[in-house]
Amino acid sequence: MTVELISIGDELLIGQTVNTNAAWLGNQLAAMGAKITKTVTVPDQKNPILRAIQAIESDLCIVTGGLGPTNDDITKKLLADYFEMELVLHPPTLAHIESFFSKRNRPMLQANIDQAKLPDGCEILPNRFGTAAGMWFTHEGGHIISLPGVPYEMKDIFEQEIRLRITERFQVNEMYHRTVLTHGIGESFLAQKIANWENALLADGLSLAYLPSPGLVKLRVSSPKGISEQAKVEHYLNALKSIIPKELFGVEQQTMAEVVGQLLKEQEKTIGTVESCTAGNLAAAMVEIPGSSDYFRGSLLTYQTLLKTELLDIPEDFIAANDVVSEAVAIRMAEAGRNKLSTDYCLSTTGIMGPSQGDSKDQVGTVWVGLSGPNGVMAKCFHFGDNRARNIEMTKLAALNLLRLTLLQENS
Amino acid sequence: MTVELISIGDELLIGQTVNTNAAWLGNQLAAMGAKITKTVTVPDQKNPILRAIQAIESDLCIVTGGLGPTNDDITKKLLADYFEMELVLHPPTLAHIESFFSKRNRPMLQANIDQAKLPDGCEILPNRFGTAAGMWFTHEGGHIISLPGVPYEMKDIFEQEIRLRITERFQVNEMYHRTVLTHGIGESFLAQKIANWENALLADGLSLAYLPSPGLVKLRVSSPKGISEQAKVEHYLNALKSIIPKELFGVEQQTMAEVVGQLLKEQEKTIGTVESCTAGNLAAAMVEIPGSSDYFRGSLLTYQTLLKTELLDIPEDFIAANDVVSEAVAIRMAEAGRNKLSTDYCLSTTGIMGPSQGDSKDQVGTVWVGLSGPNGVMAKCFHFGDNRARNIEMTKLAALNLLRLTLLQENS
Repeated sequence: MTVELISIGDELLIGQTVNTNAAWLGNQLAAMGAKITKTVTVPDQKNPILRAIQAIESDLCIVTGGLGPTNDDITKKLLADYFEMELVLHPPTLAHIESFFSKRNRPMLQANIDQAKLPDGCEILPNRFGTAAGMWFTHEGGHIISLPGVPYEMKDIFEQEIRLRITERFQVNEMYHRTVLTHGIGESFLAQKIANWENALLADGLSLAYLPSPGLVKLRVSSPKGISEQAKVEHYLNALKSIIPKELFGVEQQTMAEVVGQLLKEQEKTIGTVESCTAGNLAAAMVEIPGSSDYFRGSLLTYQTLLKTELLDIPEDFIAANDVVSEAVAIRMAEAGRNKLSTDYCLSTTGIMGPSQGDSKDQVGTVWVGLSGPNGVMAKCFHFGDNRARNIEMTKLAALNLLRLTLLQENS
Repeated sequence: MTVELISIGDELLIGQTVNTNAAWLGNQLAAMGAKITKTVTVPDQKNPILRAIQAIESDLCIVTGGLGPTNDDITKKLLADYFEMELVLHPPTLAHIESFFSKRNRPMLQANIDQAKLPDGCEILPNRFGTAAGMWFTHEGGHIISLPGVPYEMKDIFEQEIRLRITERFQVNEMYHRTVLTHGIGESFLAQKIANWENALLADGLSLAYLPSPGLVKLRVSSPKGISEQAKVEHYLNALKSIIPKELFGVEQQTMAEVVGQLLKEQEKTIGTVESCTAGNLAAAMVEIPGSSDYFRGSLLTYQTLLKTELLDIPEDFIAANDVVSEAVAIRMAEAGRNKLSTDYCLSTTGIMGPSQGDSKDQVGTVWVGLSGPNGVMAKCFHFGDNRARNIEMTKLAALNLLRLTLLQENS
């Protein structure tokens, strides 16, 4: 099965928006065994879109963008003309659009009603999160799917309406993929540590990809689909656990916050945070996980130094004597938080995220993470770089990982 | 001047890497007045690359990727064959590669020496940061540039070797772009409200693009570059301010948090947050802005309902009587926060983000945002949708916008 992607939008061509839709779709389709032969981006103009559609050479083409209610959105009309279909009112889509606006107490305009007029010969793919429905056109053995460009709408339609239909309609040489997630070890060091394992895996006909992102390296093991191949993959993944037992923290789409949340839930423990340099990012990451209210109680964000005295009762002279970014202050923060938030565990963060120096005498990129729990309190120091956003992300991961390792150890 | 971009690489097609090179190049070239007509991504294979090159229709094509030392990098050989050139050793490039490896104390392989063999009829574009030189081919009036895919190498070659040559070799009609940011009005409703303005603008030879993202619609006004055209654009932007004075909140790359931070700084006011449903996202957004410690003091994240009693002294029966997601509780939260955090203003959030119902009897997507300040306290209700991540994002924007409007009003 071959697939092409066409992305429509001036904002993509002039780089105002990075084309993450093509990357996401390519990733999903490749994992399903499709071969992505080409992706093309064209402007919001009739002739370039038409030429791109006429040039399709693959079994399936997914077109994203150009389905909004405004005048520059021309994809629907153009596809209807191309396939010689009429635009007719589609009552279920109209009902959905009406409910969409009434739920939000927003008036509905003619342009929104017009979004319910859809080509009469295509399959309608409902859009739960927006007003532009997806469309599946089948024509002389070829398939063209048109989706809105808004990423979360596009992804939801793909998951709800497209994934299953593809497996039903196309011969895919499905690959079996398993991804494991590691933290706390760099890509080249990891490669060295697992070199023997990797060589055995390759000799056994499997393949391995390293997928690094800030603070994480994902390892994807792939094999052709088949029961014995799947067993082989599982065998290697089990072996990997004993090579990097501390670094391997999760699988597939899991996040560190999800893994930690699962452990807290299993152990029936509660958590809170006292954050300075991460200023809510740690709490936000935990609360992103549905069901987090079972274990996450809340936080004190003592961003300004004086608030560490006012809210946490850490004396001003204690902070001045130790430096606000220090082991002693991280420990006092974690202890005060556990006490004031009445939780089993409390994580604390204090560091210098840059670009400016702040109240600390330490170097930009220095972070102390504290953790207090039923068995005592500790703090750990990290040295990150100059990039503020990356430092915040790295601190979040390091703090969650400290909690993860502690929960695993205390329960073993 | 028209430009196409060709990106080479399997990792782009399968979404392992997001194509930021095309976005960056598109952005630079559009700002220089070029019209980007198409971008194409093809695999590391001879025929697809060749077909993409044969299909070029623009004055200039920039090809990125496929210039590395390994066997899957075939771009250089392919372009040399296509233009019927020989690969000959280029002594300055060899000297650069030798120094590159000796500086790093790394052994040099034959594959690296081969990188100094370059097509004998093209201009060599030195790569200061890597071993793959760029190449500029001129053929029958058309121009093809080949660059490495490593982003910082590609960008440096563009800045050092390409930017100036483009202005010398092409007639560029530089465009003048200005982007304004709106919040609190949907795309189609906005289009209706500014229809007359838009029509006048179009009749005046300018162009307008709507760029929606969750909670925001950006409007980009463009014109050919020239003093009178720039004045025209500014004239229309000024006129727009009086049509949507409340909704228009910023320009270009600004964020809502940045705009609000600027107002707080100017008015020398401090802010804190008491967050339930946003659980740190509001604080995190404010702290993302460098210099935010001047005005942002800290937060109380009372995620679990009981913590609103323990930390904020809101009686349990008061919460039970009003519902935890209510105007009364949002107001009490904002008041308690302003008091406990000793700030001029305090924002509060309480809502049901979904998917589960939580402690409230209200509908998923319902959010109350409270704001207390020197002139009193208020709360506003919002109805968002079913998507947890999006609801958090929308609440964050709505809360910051409430503060923005209040700061503007109280200072006017």
